[in-house]
Amino acid sequence: MQEFSFKSRQLQAQLSGFMDEHIYPNEQAYASQLHAAQNRFAPLPLMDALKTKAKAQGLWNLFVPENHAQYSQHGGLSNYDYAPLAEMMGRVLWSPEVFNCNAPDTGNMEVFMKYATPAQQEQWLIPLLEGEIRSSYAMTEPQVASSDATNIELRITREGEEWVLNGRKWFITGAMYERTRIFIVMGKSDPDNPDRHRQQTQILVPKETPGVKLIRPLTTLGYDDAPIGHAEIQFDNVRVPLENVLLGEGRGFEIAQGRLGPGRIHHCMRLIGAAQRSLELACRRASSRSTFGRPLSKHQSVREDIAKSFSEIEMARLLVLKTCKKMDEEGVPASVDMIAASKTTVPLLVQNVIDRCMQLHGAGGLTEDYFMAEAFNYARWCRQADGPDQVHQMALGKKIIERYAG
Amino acid sequence: MQEFSFKSRQLQAQLSGFMDEHIYPNEQAYASQLHAAQNRFAPLPLMDALKTKAKAQGLWNLFVPENHAQYSQHGGLSNYDYAPLAEMMGRVLWSPEVFNCNAPDTGNMEVFMKYATPAQQEQWLIPLLEGEIRSSYAMTEPQVASSDATNIELRITREGEEWVLNGRKWFITGAMYERTRIFIVMGKSDPDNPDRHRQQTQILVPKETPGVKLIRPLTTLGYDDAPIGHAEIQFDNVRVPLENVLLGEGRGFEIAQGRLGPGRIHHCMRLIGAAQRSLELACRRASSRSTFGRPLSKHQSVREDIAKSFSEIEMARLLVLKTCKKMDEEGVPASVDMIAASKTTVPLLVQNVIDRCMQLHGAGGLTEDYFMAEAFNYARWCRQADGPDQVHQMALGKKIIERYAG
Amino acid sequence: MQEFSFKSRQLQAQLSGFMDEHIYPNEQAYASQLHAAQNRFAPLPLMDALKTKAKAQGLWNLFVPENHAQYSQHGGLSNYDYAPLAEMMGRVLWSPEVFNCNAPDTGNMEVFMKYATPAQQEQWLIPLLEGEIRSSYAMTEPQVASSDATNIELRITREGEEWVLNGRKWFITGAMYERTRIFIVMGKSDPDNPDRHRQQTQILVPKETPGVKLIRPLTTLGYDDAPIGHAEIQFDNVRVPLENVLLGEGRGFEIAQGRLGPGRIHHCMRLIGAAQRSLELACRRASSRSTFGRPLSKHQSVREDIAKSFSEIEMARLLVLKTCKKMDEEGVPASVDMIAASKTTVPLLVQNVIDRCMQLHGAGGLTEDYFMAEAFNYARWCRQADGPDQVHQMALGKKIIERYAG
Amino acid sequence: MQEFSFKSRQLQAQLSGFMDEHIYPNEQAYASQLHAAQNRFAPLPLMDALKTKAKAQGLWNLFVPENHAQYSQHGGLSNYDYAPLAEMMGRVLWSPEVFNCNAPDTGNMEVFMKYATPAQQEQWLIPLLEGEIRSSYAMTEPQVASSDATNIELRITREGEEWVLNGRKWFITGAMYERTRIFIVMGKSDPDNPDRHRQQTQILVPKETPGVKLIRPLTTLGYDDAPIGHAEIQFDNVRVPLENVLLGEGRGFEIAQGRLGPGRIHHCMRLIGAAQRSLELACRRASSRSTFGRPLSKHQSVREDIAKSFSEIEMARLLVLKTCKKMDEEGVPASVDMIAASKTTVPLLVQNVIDRCMQLHGAGGLTEDYFMAEAFNYARWCRQADGPDQVHQMALGKKIIERYAG
Repeated sequence: MQEFSFKSRQLQAQLSGFMDEHIYPNEQAYASQLHAAQNRFAPLPLMDALKTKAKAQGLWNLFVPENHAQYSQHGGLSNYDYAPLAEMMGRVLWSPEVFNCNAPDTGNMEVFMKYATPAQQEQWLIPLLEGEIRSSYAMTEPQVASSDATNIELRITREGEEWVLNGRKWFITGAMYERTRIFIVMGKSDPDNPDRHRQQTQILVPKETPGVKLIRPLTTLGYDDAPIGHAEIQFDNVRVPLENVLLGEGRGFEIAQGRLGPGRIHHCMRLIGAAQRSLELACRRASSRSTFGRPLSKHQSVREDIAKSFSEIEMARLLVLKTCKKMDEEGVPASVDMIAASKTTVPLLVQNVIDRCMQLHGAGGLTEDYFMAEAFNYARWCRQADGPDQVHQMALGKKIIERYAG
Repeated sequence: MQEFSFKSRQLQAQLSGFMDEHIYPNEQAYASQLHAAQNRFAPLPLMDALKTKAKAQGLWNLFVPENHAQYSQHGGLSNYDYAPLAEMMGRVLWSPEVFNCNAPDTGNMEVFMKYATPAQQEQWLIPLLEGEIRSSYAMTEPQVASSDATNIELRITREGEEWVLNGRKWFITGAMYERTRIFIVMGKSDPDNPDRHRQQTQILVPKETPGVKLIRPLTTLGYDDAPIGHAEIQFDNVRVPLENVLLGEGRGFEIAQGRLGPGRIHHCMRLIGAAQRSLELACRRASSRSTFGRPLSKHQSVREDIAKSFSEIEMARLLVLKTCKKMDEEGVPASVDMIAASKTTVPLLVQNVIDRCMQLHGAGGLTEDYFMAEAFNYARWCRQADGPDQVHQMALGKKIIERYAG
Repeated sequence: MQEFSFKSRQLQAQLSGFMDEHIYPNEQAYASQLHAAQNRFAPLPLMDALKTKAKAQGLWNLFVPENHAQYSQHGGLSNYDYAPLAEMMGRVLWSPEVFNCNAPDTGNMEVFMKYATPAQQEQWLIPLLEGEIRSSYAMTEPQVASSDATNIELRITREGEEWVLNGRKWFITGAMYERTRIFIVMGKSDPDNPDRHRQQTQILVPKETPGVKLIRPLTTLGYDDAPIGHAEIQFDNVRVPLENVLLGEGRGFEIAQGRLGPGRIHHCMRLIGAAQRSLELACRRASSRSTFGRPLSKHQSVREDIAKSFSEIEMARLLVLKTCKKMDEEGVPASVDMIAASKTTVPLLVQNVIDRCMQLHGAGGLTEDYFMAEAFNYARWCRQADGPDQVHQMALGKKIIERYAG
Repeated sequence: MQEFSFKSRQLQAQLSGFMDEHIYPNEQAYASQLHAAQNRFAPLPLMDALKTKAKAQGLWNLFVPENHAQYSQHGGLSNYDYAPLAEMMGRVLWSPEVFNCNAPDTGNMEVFMKYATPAQQEQWLIPLLEGEIRSSYAMTEPQVASSDATNIELRITREGEEWVLNGRKWFITGAMYERTRIFIVMGKSDPDNPDRHRQQTQILVPKETPGVKLIRPLTTLGYDDAPIGHAEIQFDNVRVPLENVLLGEGRGFEIAQGRLGPGRIHHCMRLIGAAQRSLELACRRASSRSTFGRPLSKHQSVREDIAKSFSEIEMARLLVLKTCKKMDEEGVPASVDMIAASKTTVPLLVQNVIDRCMQLHGAGGLTEDYFMAEAFNYARWCRQADGPDQVHQMALGKKIIERYAG
């Protein structure tokens, strides 16, 4: 509720204009290009054209935080100031990439900013910031509960001047995308270390390295999220030089901890945009459609659904903004309570809001004629992304009990 | 809770055996064939092989009701006796077709049994009963609230010895399927008739008739339900001979009323099977997966979710069985209260059960590795199919208020 | 859905007539007598008059099961046949006592039928069956989680020819009632027995025994459930002769197990009656009240609420009936899954139905002008009575997981 | 999320200290005095003692807004600054009166500040501000849907130098209280005025005026809210002089509109305090109680309940704070959207939070041993107070639809 900074408000106005002029009018064209694509994971010409336009207007890398100001033209934005921008991008699911603000690249770029050597930054961070290449973060494994990072099983061994990786990952967002060049891979280098948080290491693995096998794209509720997508990947004796380690051997867990907070909140911000747009669509539908001789807008049940959705979106937005504020002022570690509260509340709330808004659209509401069905999948998927909600509720519940009963 | 008839129990045992031997073991093969298909709406070789097997065992046309016993070898089944069989088929979404029991053909065959001339039956019903051709029922229109059948706008005019049809339909299940040959089309032949329920007529339109244009397959939550699918169709000056009328001019509304009751309940029966299977998968997952050092099955929240899901499925099943019983004993018109109660309760309840079971599976629960995600879509879609739940609640609420306040 | 027996249907007709003639017309009088009472836990003259009438008509001890037929004139009723009768009584919260069918006396009488000596039966069971005295079952303790019966701490020691009891109980239904004469007290007689289910004994303690101290009546959501009520009781060196043991030393747990199944289901039956009556009140309200120029009955949200409530009550009733059927055919131990499903589903469902119906009545819906507010409390309270729902879900979830994953 | 003013923070610290020192330690004493009272609607000695203490510390009339600064020592507080203070008072249901901040007097005092003549203020406002007398606002009527103020039927006629009132009111908070001296009565003075918002007038009626008959105290869910309570009142030819009109004839609707906004929000603020305290109690219970060999705090379902409750309370608090901010900056009329969002969201949310927290306490959670049961009633009742939620959702839904579809 505090005002956004002048810079944020200026960017909001600019971004809003860009959405009106270039994004909404291109939604159908984008869908058509993707639909017609021979390879659903190849870059789309329309995306590249839009990226050029956005970059030219300075609507680029808006996610870059203040403490890494040097990596952006705008000088960095606090989480609080970035929230309304991310919300706007959430109104069209593919639009964040236009502004170089899409997951998982934003999180990966932050990892490079924080933990990479100058040489690693030169090779990977710069082209990522330029939007020339894309990246993946390979953490989740099919055979273990990966939300507990200490369960990770992909094996990293050191042989001479090389790291050798063996294992399987899935839900590796971006890995299918043709433009993706680099994977940050989390694995176990020291499984017998008595300190369970020192067993893990993160290694940079160029996508083209021999032994990296893209098994298949995964779908959630029928969506493949192309062209970015989610892949299952096999690592068979994948060898990279020792200098490809990130931060240092045994420090993989530490990187993972540092990465996840903002990512979860970015999802929440975008989901609020998705819910808000669904609500607006539902309002338009309600005033343009009649059943049984009355406009939908006059049915009491419709008004109650709209009122509930409005109120819930307001609450979700405020929760996220408060979380941002706390992250800005006290840092991520001190904000894990609010991050967990947002992560476990917003996706489910948004799923329910969109469900109502779809229902108001009749059978058409479930189709690709509106963005709601795919946004519903996004919300549903976020209840699993970065760990199932239940895992975060476990930690949050424990912390709150200690706070009041300690 | 009444026992099922001996015939039903015998068929249940046989069907259960068939599922174990031929359906579950082929789920992956079916998915692969469909995935690899050049045309997703062409018949799959595996389906045809399975149909042959099922037919040979007499597991065929199980939906045929007692009052049309002549159309089946088994002599007809009551709704009550059919319910557990349909539930079993609901455990694999594509399996009803194996037994010639899939929507919308079952409903269409009943229409032919009840309302068609012998010549029409000869031409269309017999090959449908044999599983040689498929059919569609073209009712819903994109531009009007079609749940109120009097809103239908497709124009039917009589010109000489022909009916001429002009209009647009969508969500026409089965229309994309290559094997589909015949459409039952609902339209308005007498829009000025003061009796709003005499304005409609149903016409048989062979799919190949000039002027019939398949616009596109529709998706719901990302699923195209291939090969049966849902189509958008344009009718441009489509001409068929006068004898293609069903039952008679002005009697379309009457047919529509007669068709819908059992169809809704068949969906509910199958959905219960889908929920039951999801529950069983969740139980297996819970006992085979550990997080934070305990098997999922020992987490109290998991047990509560399982207990809730079990109880809800029991209640949904009982509601549907009671509805069947009433339909069997008092007929469809007297049972609209229970049909509406089932139609507006079961899909949402099943959606929630499956949502929980998916969540227990981690990210994988949303993928095609389990049948849950597509079953979730089936449940969600049924909240719109045959009219949005709200329309049925409107009628049911009105009726109950009159019952107790009349 | 199976038909009720001829006997049950006959009793239903008779009971329904009695409710119409004697119970509903006396609701206000009963409330006034209770309100005006000097001692809220004294017997009410109106109750006694009604009991006499009911007994004269044979509407008496309807709960008596078939295997104890000798204790009733009607020859015993199965759980299934009793269900619709108990549902009717649930429509007026104080009415079960009129028919000698109120908790906790029904459960206690069953305990006496099953486990008491002829002398004990003579002394306590006969006057209970006659409705001359009332009884309590003292199990729950304030300081331990009593839903796990092995936690019980009230100490029973044998001194010479006497049992000596020391401890505290609460939520002892009926104990405040002036007419109550006998307590069945569960305590620990052998706390060191390695078999945790042999540590408990149940002792018959006349209410007037020295050392029995009624501490206070307890309220739930502001209701004291007078005149039956729920008491907190202190037992200070309470001494009774050895023959007051029930069944035998160390067999208290066994009795507790045997008692609880039917009791839980009787609550569910009555709750369904309470929900059904609330629905009927809501229907009448909806058709008699207008807001903003339309009768409530024409508001779509009202119709949806009525439709939902109707459907949910149907499902709850069917779940309970199926549970009864199973208990009748397979016995209580084999039916614990269905008993737990009912116990953890019906009270919450009924609470929600009544909440909706109250809301439809405006502010008045929360007052004593309707029976809904107190019925709401009854439903809410049943989520704790006989153990919190969560404990039963724990057991049920475990059992279902084993069933499908075993 | 904006910081509270220095003044507010200072008062928060002071009030928090007062609660710790004087309120919490007196909860049992207060309950005992009320329980023992011959007349439940007489002032309690303990209350008077606490009021004296609070006044001496300047913790008095904290609700007085900035634009009426002259009526308080603290110089007035914005809604935003008052919110955390009201939340604290919500932690003990009877505590607002200690600080002269209880409903309905706060709303009535604001009415006197805004609309009364100097003489009326002298007579009624001053002693109200001193806490010497109490007041009621008589609006709701039993026979009409009073949430639509134009339905009000109490008849006001002018006869000579007097107003004559005839009609019936109910849910008149405070009217039973012995200390209450003055009623503000809304009625119809000009029922035929074509402008439906000019038909109403508000009249000051001293409680002792002949013809004013207190019919009975009303309960909600079994609670009488004594000593403040809610009354049903009959007005039979009640005569007061013409100067007792408030603001002017025909301006009753205008006053009603002006009064209700802050009142609804004050309820929301206090409810958040009630929920927060329930959460804290639940945390303490979870860490002090064990079932089945584990502390409740280690059960995953308990942690999920705590996490959900924490998150929901955060959201509710933020929604209310944003509403306050908007009221402060843009005034009540421009804030009706946010007021409606809060009014229709917070009470239900708080009801659910408290329901969970009660359940965690076992059977005891429903008793008077904790403040939760009565707080549950407060939340439930607020879904009806100032109009049923549905009426506010009707208006809010309409407004939002216009906003996005206009």
